[in-house]
Amino acid sequence: MAHMTTPRVRMSPDARREQLIELGVQLLGRRSLEELSIEVLAEEAGISRGLLYHYFGGKQEFHVAVVRRAADDLFTVTAPRGSGSPLEQLAGSLERYVDYVRDNYEGYVSLVRGAAGGHEALREIYEESRTALTDRLFDGAVAEEASDLGLTDTPTVRLLVRGWAAFMEEVVVEWVRDPRGVTREELLHTLVGSLPGILAPLRPA
Amino acid sequence: MAHMTTPRVRMSPDARREQLIELGVQLLGRRSLEELSIEVLAEEAGISRGLLYHYFGGKQEFHVAVVRRAADDLFTVTAPRGSGSPLEQLAGSLERYVDYVRDNYEGYVSLVRGAAGGHEALREIYEESRTALTDRLFDGAVAEEASDLGLTDTPTVRLLVRGWAAFMEEVVVEWVRDPRGVTREELLHTLVGSLPGILAPLRPA
Repeated sequence: MAHMTTPRVRMSPDARREQLIELGVQLLGRRSLEELSIEVLAEEAGISRGLLYHYFGGKQEFHVAVVRRAADDLFTVTAPRGSGSPLEQLAGSLERYVDYVRDNYEGYVSLVRGAAGGHEALREIYEESRTALTDRLFDGAVAEEASDLGLTDTPTVRLLVRGWAAFMEEVVVEWVRDPRGVTREELLHTLVGSLPGILAPLRPA
Repeated sequence: MAHMTTPRVRMSPDARREQLIELGVQLLGRRSLEELSIEVLAEEAGISRGLLYHYFGGKQEFHVAVVRRAADDLFTVTAPRGSGSPLEQLAGSLERYVDYVRDNYEGYVSLVRGAAGGHEALREIYEESRTALTDRLFDGAVAEEASDLGLTDTPTVRLLVRGWAAFMEEVVVEWVRDPRGVTREELLHTLVGSLPGILAPLRPA
């Protein structure tokens, strides 16, 4: 159950707010943003709606705080780790990305799909998040003298990487929704190869 | 100017409705769906709003009719032509797709972005359109014994092609919005290679 344990010690307002945002992110795993109301959070946290309005001002602000935290989590979770080749590091990041989407499906979908639907602040967080995730690829490419990914920092590559992010989102969301018999290993194998695949036409023949 | 010439002969209601839908599609090239009101259409067509409500019932129905027509147009425009290799035919279709998005930018973006935003009927048309466009790739692959595209009809390939459609939309819309110095030729070269590139990881090593 997502119910929080009642705090035994008096928490600072900031710490309390942080804790409520974390709970919101957790709840977003199994329900869409639309379904995540102040009422739901109040019930799950076992505190009054009035107090929540005190912390967040309103539903909109609450959603923005939760989605921003979820985007930060995704960024942290998918950070390159270890010291393998760029392709091995990419494979690790993608694996954690796939698992993140699987474990936070409803919230992730409502972020990706909802970003297109008019809520300007959420759209901005989504854009920032995608930009941060893809920019990081170029940091890696710069650090690595002889990248085997073909990630040279040119306008064409930037454009293709942006498209690749849309490809990833679509494939992973769709796979989590309905795996169609495609295994996690098959999925990861194709995802890792897709970035060099998309960049292949740029290589000198 | 988009003003229609006043019809000299009495048109049947169906023909008149068709003509108004065509005008709507045309207007969608330079304005978003939100900006395409019954009022705008009435002014451009030089007929009364009352008559338009008679033909379409309301703004919602008018939008659905226009977007459906636009989707049909896109399907027709991007149909494979000629008798080249599958890759040559793909190149031709992509070229016409890029030009279509360029020439119908506002409407196309409001379809793609707006599909995510709650309007269920438009979302359906968008999904149908994308499915029709990608299904056609498999018709071609079946017809061609030795496809050089790697489009065998498996769940994994279907999933990747779905992702590729999202990739295409993102790259082309973004390129039309801001070409960043990437030429149409460079763009087309990378787009044509992206499909075999995405499918490359599935090829036996």
